[in-house]
Amino acid sequence: MDAAEFRRRGKEMVDYVADYLENIEKRPVYPDLEPGYLRSLIPNEAPLEPESYEDIIKDVERVIMPGVTHWHSPYFFAYFPAASSYPAMVADMLCGAIGCIGFSWAASPACTELETVMLDWLGKMLQLPECFIAGTHGRGGGVIQGTASEATLMSLLAARCKAVRRVQAINAKKSESEILSKLVAYTSDQAHSSVERAALIGAVMMRKVPTDNHYAVRKEMLKKMVEEDKAAGLIPFYFCATLGTTPSCAFDHLTELGPLCNEENMWMHIDAAYAGSAFVCPEFRPLLNGVEFADSFNFNPHKWLLVNFDSAIVKQHWQIPLGRRFRSLKMWFVFRMYGLKGLQAHIRKQVALAKEFESLVRADKRFEICAEVVLGLVCFRLKGSNELNQELLKRITKSREIHLVPCQLSGRFVLRFAICARSTESHHIQQAWQHITQLTFELLQEANVKCHKGKVE
Amino acid sequence: MDAAEFRRRGKEMVDYVADYLENIEKRPVYPDLEPGYLRSLIPNEAPLEPESYEDIIKDVERVIMPGVTHWHSPYFFAYFPAASSYPAMVADMLCGAIGCIGFSWAASPACTELETVMLDWLGKMLQLPECFIAGTHGRGGGVIQGTASEATLMSLLAARCKAVRRVQAINAKKSESEILSKLVAYTSDQAHSSVERAALIGAVMMRKVPTDNHYAVRKEMLKKMVEEDKAAGLIPFYFCATLGTTPSCAFDHLTELGPLCNEENMWMHIDAAYAGSAFVCPEFRPLLNGVEFADSFNFNPHKWLLVNFDSAIVKQHWQIPLGRRFRSLKMWFVFRMYGLKGLQAHIRKQVALAKEFESLVRADKRFEICAEVVLGLVCFRLKGSNELNQELLKRITKSREIHLVPCQLSGRFVLRFAICARSTESHHIQQAWQHITQLTFELLQEANVKCHKGKVE
Repeated sequence: MDAAEFRRRGKEMVDYVADYLENIEKRPVYPDLEPGYLRSLIPNEAPLEPESYEDIIKDVERVIMPGVTHWHSPYFFAYFPAASSYPAMVADMLCGAIGCIGFSWAASPACTELETVMLDWLGKMLQLPECFIAGTHGRGGGVIQGTASEATLMSLLAARCKAVRRVQAINAKKSESEILSKLVAYTSDQAHSSVERAALIGAVMMRKVPTDNHYAVRKEMLKKMVEEDKAAGLIPFYFCATLGTTPSCAFDHLTELGPLCNEENMWMHIDAAYAGSAFVCPEFRPLLNGVEFADSFNFNPHKWLLVNFDSAIVKQHWQIPLGRRFRSLKMWFVFRMYGLKGLQAHIRKQVALAKEFESLVRADKRFEICAEVVLGLVCFRLKGSNELNQELLKRITKSREIHLVPCQLSGRFVLRFAICARSTESHHIQQAWQHITQLTFELLQEANVKCHKGKVE
Repeated sequence: MDAAEFRRRGKEMVDYVADYLENIEKRPVYPDLEPGYLRSLIPNEAPLEPESYEDIIKDVERVIMPGVTHWHSPYFFAYFPAASSYPAMVADMLCGAIGCIGFSWAASPACTELETVMLDWLGKMLQLPECFIAGTHGRGGGVIQGTASEATLMSLLAARCKAVRRVQAINAKKSESEILSKLVAYTSDQAHSSVERAALIGAVMMRKVPTDNHYAVRKEMLKKMVEEDKAAGLIPFYFCATLGTTPSCAFDHLTELGPLCNEENMWMHIDAAYAGSAFVCPEFRPLLNGVEFADSFNFNPHKWLLVNFDSAIVKQHWQIPLGRRFRSLKMWFVFRMYGLKGLQAHIRKQVALAKEFESLVRADKRFEICAEVVLGLVCFRLKGSNELNQELLKRITKSREIHLVPCQLSGRFVLRFAICARSTESHHIQQAWQHITQLTFELLQEANVKCHKGKVE
């Protein structure tokens, strides 16, 4: 493919992409396939001779699309959103063309510098404290990480390094491995699995802190654990707070926990992967109060701020990969084309849709809401057994009209309904609820018949 | 930006990208800027109201392009190549549109499955042993990592886990931290900095193995270090072999080192980040002999196999990020549009260009070749002091007509000339050499004048 063919094929692809996204709701949101479906559809090895572009693009509909879970369908309510917007896609094309690998300033000055300034833009949008802003002094600031998992790992490693130095400053004879064996990290029992994995990689202990009725970590519980561990000769050194937990979008109490971490010389990292984007709205910013006590902070604009994957942020300089794409270009395009007001409008719209869904659930006495709806996630369930709810979800998944995933809250099987796609509107919510209640009706009727039969027999 | 505007802007961007790449050699390859140039060119914070696309795209030439090091200019000979091809760019557009986050099969079956099959295609192209192929049994196989640094870290962590289990199987009482404090990893003194960093993250010791005259690790030296460490009560557990070192593209002797690692129960990882792509050619495949002794293997198709960043490969299942882009789409498009023969032709052409440059250097008695030219990298220098060579490179960089970076080999300052861009042809090599000899002529004349003056005075 030369430049001339790229002009042709690239433009065809632009149309294909626009068609795909304009008509995405006509596709079943979830594939109807068994694992291993793809291997039999394509050859076992690469072709020796070049194939035509026509053959390849035909295979996109034949091989790829039947196996795609359509994250940008307005009927996709699973996990958390994966951001996507047209300006980000256009910027990504430019990023691919420049194709620099930004591992140092000289390797691509624009890549290094735009990233620093974009992180400042983000920091200011979120009203982060001055120490998180690079400015012209370059003392604060952060870098774009690939994912929140990497950001968490980086913060834990930085905290580990600092803790080892602190202990050795008091007692130079202590070996690093001796110190490592005594370090303890903490996080919520609701935290993402990547936090536990970071401790595994970093070879330190990790304790899960039990949460309150709202699935949040409170000061007393962390304090108790820290004191017990200190009494046992261990060294508490790191706490990963979560703002917007994966199961229920719960918020740890930073204003309580921050001062405790500071007193105890524990690094406080904030993982706000999903919820962080909401803090661009003044009405949600109070949820971030206490960030001034934190040593590092991460959220994923690629989740909820219209910037396509991959672009997690950590306000702190360190990363595993040496090379990196020119990822800040996407942010620059998106932030400018939407403006802060446009970004706020996006968040507010999706929170309103979640509230709309919540009202529908609350109005139906067969259902219950399982956690406070703060942002774009609604946790709900049928009043009744876990088995009943499992069966309901099974039918929802099988119908392929909408897509949700479950979570466990206090031992109960709960359905998570997250507002994900940029294209989701009120009528999609209404239709989703109608679909859920229809399946519920059928399910309960069958259950009644069974129950009745049981009584008769 | 709605779908209609995306159709328009996306197509304009396709043309912009094609224009950029068709005319890239007219741009100075390296920017003429001081660090911090960008901040003053754009606002300190995101705009409140949306801006127009016209304003943003105008800023690409005003703000971004002056600060870009043009990796795809045919006069770019620095570092190692960053792969780029038109089919990969078209595929990346599709990847952005699908915008799935592939952290599990259900999250996007096509993403998970195409990746597995593409890694098999790659494994077969490189004639990797059967144990590196997933096939239908799924026992071998690998995943796409973001970078070689991540792949190295993953292999070291897997090796660490295995070593701890092995020691605890013999002596269940040994604590993990006690074992960690005794683990030793090894790598070449020519290895990439990311290897040392992996050990730092994994909290294990790392020893640098001295290399022979060809900058390669040989069995005797590694064996000696392993035996000394064992005698001191340490536990050798990991060796990272390099195929194609960053400074000089040297190759560790796998057929010697592999059996030693196997005997000593040491995990052998192969980092072939740059050179790995060349193994698609039968004539270079012998350099990979000994891979059958390895536990894991990584190379970066995004370096030299025409697949745009990011797409490093590791034949082994584990990774830090949970979410991932649909990165295998790019491979699928590229491998099919080039065919194996097209990929081989690309490698061979670039190796031939390196040989052409080598001949030019060898024909000029003022210069010397500093390491065997095996693939696309030529290490050379002026016969004379390090200062003289530093001055030559300084003038090359300042002229901005070609771009190279230096390395240190046996304490000597050496210039690295790597064939990078897909668009580099013989006449670019000839012109680059003419430019270098012109600058050399001026430099040596000035040096002579100075020297003569010194004698007269």
